[in-house]
Amino acid sequence: MTAALIGIDWGTSSFRAWRIDGAGRVIDAVTEGPGILAAITQPGGFEGALTRAIGGWLGAAPIIASGMITSRNGWVETPYLPLPLDLSALAGGLVAHETGFGRIHFVCGAISDRDGPSPDVMRGEETEIIGHLADSNPDGLFILPGTHSKWAQVRAGRLTGFRTVMTGEMFQLMRDHSILGRLIQPGPPDPEAFGRGVAAGGQGGPLLGRIFSARSLALLERLGPGQIADYLSGLLIGDEVAQCLADAPDAPDAPVTIIGRGDLADRYRIALQAQGVRAQIAPAGMAQRGLWNIAQTAGIV
Amino acid sequence: MTAALIGIDWGTSSFRAWRIDGAGRVIDAVTEGPGILAAITQPGGFEGALTRAIGGWLGAAPIIASGMITSRNGWVETPYLPLPLDLSALAGGLVAHETGFGRIHFVCGAISDRDGPSPDVMRGEETEIIGHLADSNPDGLFILPGTHSKWAQVRAGRLTGFRTVMTGEMFQLMRDHSILGRLIQPGPPDPEAFGRGVAAGGQGGPLLGRIFSARSLALLERLGPGQIADYLSGLLIGDEVAQCLADAPDAPDAPVTIIGRGDLADRYRIALQAQGVRAQIAPAGMAQRGLWNIAQTAGIV
Repeated sequence: MTAALIGIDWGTSSFRAWRIDGAGRVIDAVTEGPGILAAITQPGGFEGALTRAIGGWLGAAPIIASGMITSRNGWVETPYLPLPLDLSALAGGLVAHETGFGRIHFVCGAISDRDGPSPDVMRGEETEIIGHLADSNPDGLFILPGTHSKWAQVRAGRLTGFRTVMTGEMFQLMRDHSILGRLIQPGPPDPEAFGRGVAAGGQGGPLLGRIFSARSLALLERLGPGQIADYLSGLLIGDEVAQCLADAPDAPDAPVTIIGRGDLADRYRIALQAQGVRAQIAPAGMAQRGLWNIAQTAGIV
Repeated sequence: MTAALIGIDWGTSSFRAWRIDGAGRVIDAVTEGPGILAAITQPGGFEGALTRAIGGWLGAAPIIASGMITSRNGWVETPYLPLPLDLSALAGGLVAHETGFGRIHFVCGAISDRDGPSPDVMRGEETEIIGHLADSNPDGLFILPGTHSKWAQVRAGRLTGFRTVMTGEMFQLMRDHSILGRLIQPGPPDPEAFGRGVAAGGQGGPLLGRIFSARSLALLERLGPGQIADYLSGLLIGDEVAQCLADAPDAPDAPVTIIGRGDLADRYRIALQAQGVRAQIAPAGMAQRGLWNIAQTAGIV
């Protein structure tokens, strides 16, 4: 099979790449490789890491890449494009870089509220959202769960606003380093404890007070050591969902779209349902579809 | 000088003790010693640690102690007393324990919302608040800043509600272990960065989103590496103050009283002022005054 495009989604701690044919279909995929933090220290830097990961593919098709690989600590730092942002702006903003095996086209990141009190940035998620826009509803609210989850507002096929919430990182910090974390013991998944956490997360008052209440519940033996982690996960995701919905410019009438997979996507779906909001989980493949659409619009393929 | 009482405020990582005369005046003080986490591993445990810290005082006067020394990991675990809580209930709840150098009277902790969704507990702060009540306004809102700050509501001389907010611990977690923390460099105190943080802390939206904005501000070079810590401190304290004031049963008409000292008390005063709320910093000595008043009401002195 002949590839028309090689697409790469290269994040801080993740690497995924696809060979894509002339009809936009994925014909080969690599889902493991060094993230940029690992690649930067390897022999030959990013070029060496890429050669080891997908060397057999290189030279036969144009390459497009998105994600934190375009950040200051990445291979080529690309600008942040302002909102509202659409497919043609992303295609027009590609930054070409010559390498030993041909040209790589790097996608720009996006910036929200650059001069305001709470600026926000993304690199990679804009490509996944664009991927979704190409063949579905052009209006709506999107959530991309992760270490730093992204909430994105789309209107008429354009990215009009977004916000990053560091819920995943906070969960890890609390679990691994906090006084509360010392009480945590491993246990089987506990949907009931998660649900109690979601309910507590949707309540008012300071978040850092509600987190402390998890410790009180444990001290009072109303929360078992094996339940604390799921309760805390529910509390943090529940707070994120309640606060972001309250802060959204208008209540979502269409279902919210979750771009993500597995257990974490399910947790967000449950927390949205607890707020009376319907959610749908996007089909897999948003990153490669976005890369293809950007390349096609830019005339690379 | 003859002591009528030995008072001890013994916390997780702090130890303070006072010799108090028959008129309630402090005649001698020790402000350094092992907190309970350190004492528990020393030869002779708590009794050994106490002998080394204030051995020359012991045996000559009754002893009263409050703080985390009465917790499960402390010397003698005392119950939590329910709200509303006043001086006579604390005096009536003392738990006596015989030691090699006489009886120690341990003060009980306090519990809020025991069976509700967000129970909360304190050990030690109830004594400091009672200390304040003995000779000043019996109504009002009190803040005790610290690793886990306490907000306490007092009506007619009784503790009627409180909430713990883990702002101090969160600041340390973020500074020492987070992605944001990696951007922090030491710098001189920066009141302007702190004030910007306080303003961001008072805005709506998810707290963990506003914390992420500190990273964006740093990436955009709108916040210098030496300013990030003060900005983050302002953001966390500003959020705590805004949320706790919004959550208080009614807006404080009297000034809020801060029981604490130095830089941290000042930070809370500034954040309260930013919300249009007057604050006063309590005079020093609330813990020893509270211990004296409880002992006197209990008939120990």
